[in-house]
Amino acid sequence: MKLADRIARLGTETAFAVSAEAAAFAAQGNKVYPFHLGDLNLKTPANVQAAAIKAMQEGRTGYCPNGGIPQLREILAEDVSAARNVKYTMENIAIQPGGKPTISKFFMSLMNPGDEVLYPNPGYPIYESQIEFHGGKAVPYGFIEGEKNFEIDTDMLESRITPRSRLLVLNDLQNPTGAECSMAELEKIAELVRKHDLWVLCDEAYFDIRYQGRSKSLVSLPDMVDRCIILYTFSKKFAMTGWRLGATIGPKEIIDVIIKLNVNDESCSNHFIQYAAIEGLTGDLTEARQILATLKERRDQAVDILNDIEGIKCLRPDATFYLWPNVTGAMQKTGLTDYDSFRKTVLQQTGVSFCTRLHFGRPLEGEDQYYIRLAYSGINTPEIEKGLGKLKAFIEQ
Amino acid sequence: MKLADRIARLGTETAFAVSAEAAAFAAQGNKVYPFHLGDLNLKTPANVQAAAIKAMQEGRTGYCPNGGIPQLREILAEDVSAARNVKYTMENIAIQPGGKPTISKFFMSLMNPGDEVLYPNPGYPIYESQIEFHGGKAVPYGFIEGEKNFEIDTDMLESRITPRSRLLVLNDLQNPTGAECSMAELEKIAELVRKHDLWVLCDEAYFDIRYQGRSKSLVSLPDMVDRCIILYTFSKKFAMTGWRLGATIGPKEIIDVIIKLNVNDESCSNHFIQYAAIEGLTGDLTEARQILATLKERRDQAVDILNDIEGIKCLRPDATFYLWPNVTGAMQKTGLTDYDSFRKTVLQQTGVSFCTRLHFGRPLEGEDQYYIRLAYSGINTPEIEKGLGKLKAFIEQ
Repeated sequence: MKLADRIARLGTETAFAVSAEAAAFAAQGNKVYPFHLGDLNLKTPANVQAAAIKAMQEGRTGYCPNGGIPQLREILAEDVSAARNVKYTMENIAIQPGGKPTISKFFMSLMNPGDEVLYPNPGYPIYESQIEFHGGKAVPYGFIEGEKNFEIDTDMLESRITPRSRLLVLNDLQNPTGAECSMAELEKIAELVRKHDLWVLCDEAYFDIRYQGRSKSLVSLPDMVDRCIILYTFSKKFAMTGWRLGATIGPKEIIDVIIKLNVNDESCSNHFIQYAAIEGLTGDLTEARQILATLKERRDQAVDILNDIEGIKCLRPDATFYLWPNVTGAMQKTGLTDYDSFRKTVLQQTGVSFCTRLHFGRPLEGEDQYYIRLAYSGINTPEIEKGLGKLKAFIEQ
Repeated sequence: MKLADRIARLGTETAFAVSAEAAAFAAQGNKVYPFHLGDLNLKTPANVQAAAIKAMQEGRTGYCPNGGIPQLREILAEDVSAARNVKYTMENIAIQPGGKPTISKFFMSLMNPGDEVLYPNPGYPIYESQIEFHGGKAVPYGFIEGEKNFEIDTDMLESRITPRSRLLVLNDLQNPTGAECSMAELEKIAELVRKHDLWVLCDEAYFDIRYQGRSKSLVSLPDMVDRCIILYTFSKKFAMTGWRLGATIGPKEIIDVIIKLNVNDESCSNHFIQYAAIEGLTGDLTEARQILATLKERRDQAVDILNDIEGIKCLRPDATFYLWPNVTGAMQKTGLTDYDSFRKTVLQQTGVSFCTRLHFGRPLEGEDQYYIRLAYSGINTPEIEKGLGKLKAFIEQ
């Protein structure tokens, strides 16, 4: 008796091991400063909660349509269309139990075994896992540290396109780097997509987590609406990570397939919480805006302290709730020159828990700078100050 | 640009088309008697709802562990162990967003392309779909209409086992026939499983929907706990179909893989509704028992009327909320000798909507008896009486 062969190709989020180590350290009576996981320690807005409770009590507890309730699909289509200057209707929307299910359904719908898929690295590790699990070939592209922002290495991206390239994963605004494409980058990517006839997974999980300016989407560029599948989630902007609600958005012909996958995989998403999402999109936004204000305050505090540490350089992304500081100098200073010993020693010595480059895909050849990821979604400002203060003392000792 | 090849092998629940036809007929101002879909028109017990609301308001709105919250996994392990006389612990449990996700995850974990899978036919159509979607060969086995019960045709089952047979799907208690294995059937199946070294998906979605006696499980038989994966759901007994909560239960080595699939597919199930499930398993059962009492009353009324119709013979299953009457004589009498014209004419003439044999897998060679499926989960007794009265009048006219 043995497992199916494909299981050997299944990856995971190794960040969960970091959580486990932090929990074990805390269980020994130590203080932990949790910068490792991208969950929010903020409340779901009360009006959003109330809408779910009302729908539950009104009996929205039976199955709903496989693609989601029509009202939510309509409202979400309008919202996403307005924010991206395109024209989606409810037929372009398939509600999902979270943002993540869009990843596996995208690859199952559009990737054949042997197809090559360009994906961001460092990046969310589930892309790599799902590409390989379903028999594709994962082809990474990297990022360049600019003055104000990380940029996609579009030369590397272009150089890795082959006749077998069929899909592209674009996570703009990006986990873990906070990178945001300039219009020039988006135009270059759109050109490559057209030229090489690619399908694109636009993971826009952080589209609405931004502190100034306006998010852009690849789908706004000419022809892209017919080639892009958007991963959408309610998790971040309404602090609803544990509710599990999101959507796949794209051309009707693909959405019809995705809905057929819904029929096969989980029938439908939870019925009554879809009414909470409607309230989120159409109701009072006071608490949702407060979530953003809180996150912005945390970002500024963390970036300021990090840049005050010798050997650390941290950009200040306008979006996401992640920081990707360059810690090359700090690691050299401590003599801890591999990621795991640096991370574990910092945890033991200071209680500061974070992920490193190793948790975001297999490192590329020639990387000579070292980065860690700090998430500030699950830690309050007094703790940020204390924790990063200890980090500073440890590195500068 | 084209879809992945595997999409051509993806099936669906054709019963949804029956729903659509019924809805279209109702939209024309006609009365519909809905016997077609296995949803419940009953309320989730108030104490179960209250537990979810409390957990939501207490902030159980962030991610939870990928396999589910430990308390629920422990309590469910105890509950399932006691009901099946085995010894599971929380390590044998992976919480899922519904019962259905266990089907695709079972095949992804244990089936290689080309492996043969024995599955019940008539049966839930998603087995056939998921076997073929993930590259397996679907090998059907049928049922025999006994005096009191449908029985698995174990001779057919045995005759179809080959050296490539690797998996078996057992849906005991069964949708759509209401079949329930005798101890002799279970022993025969266990013998075949041991002899041919098979993994078994035990779809026990209806294990607790029974009106007398006690449900048995294949896992109770010698060696079977190491070879069976149970599909468990909270949907039916607590009228929670639209909540989407269930579990995969089996050997730890498989559950570890299933949890890794959870990490990849949807991260975790909704956090706060897991507290509702704890209340369901440990709290007051008054309303849950009332659900069963209501269903039993509906079953008896429906069976009595059906058996009073010329050309229809209906068994009275002790479990599930489905009836699988033999309508061979009735169809002959009406001159409507193919399933679709019989079904559509009955809908048009009487408003009674149901599924037929065609919605439960590709018919086997040599079938000469005709069956339809009536679900009584979504229709109240006065409507059952009126609807089936009209059916009787139509057939006997």
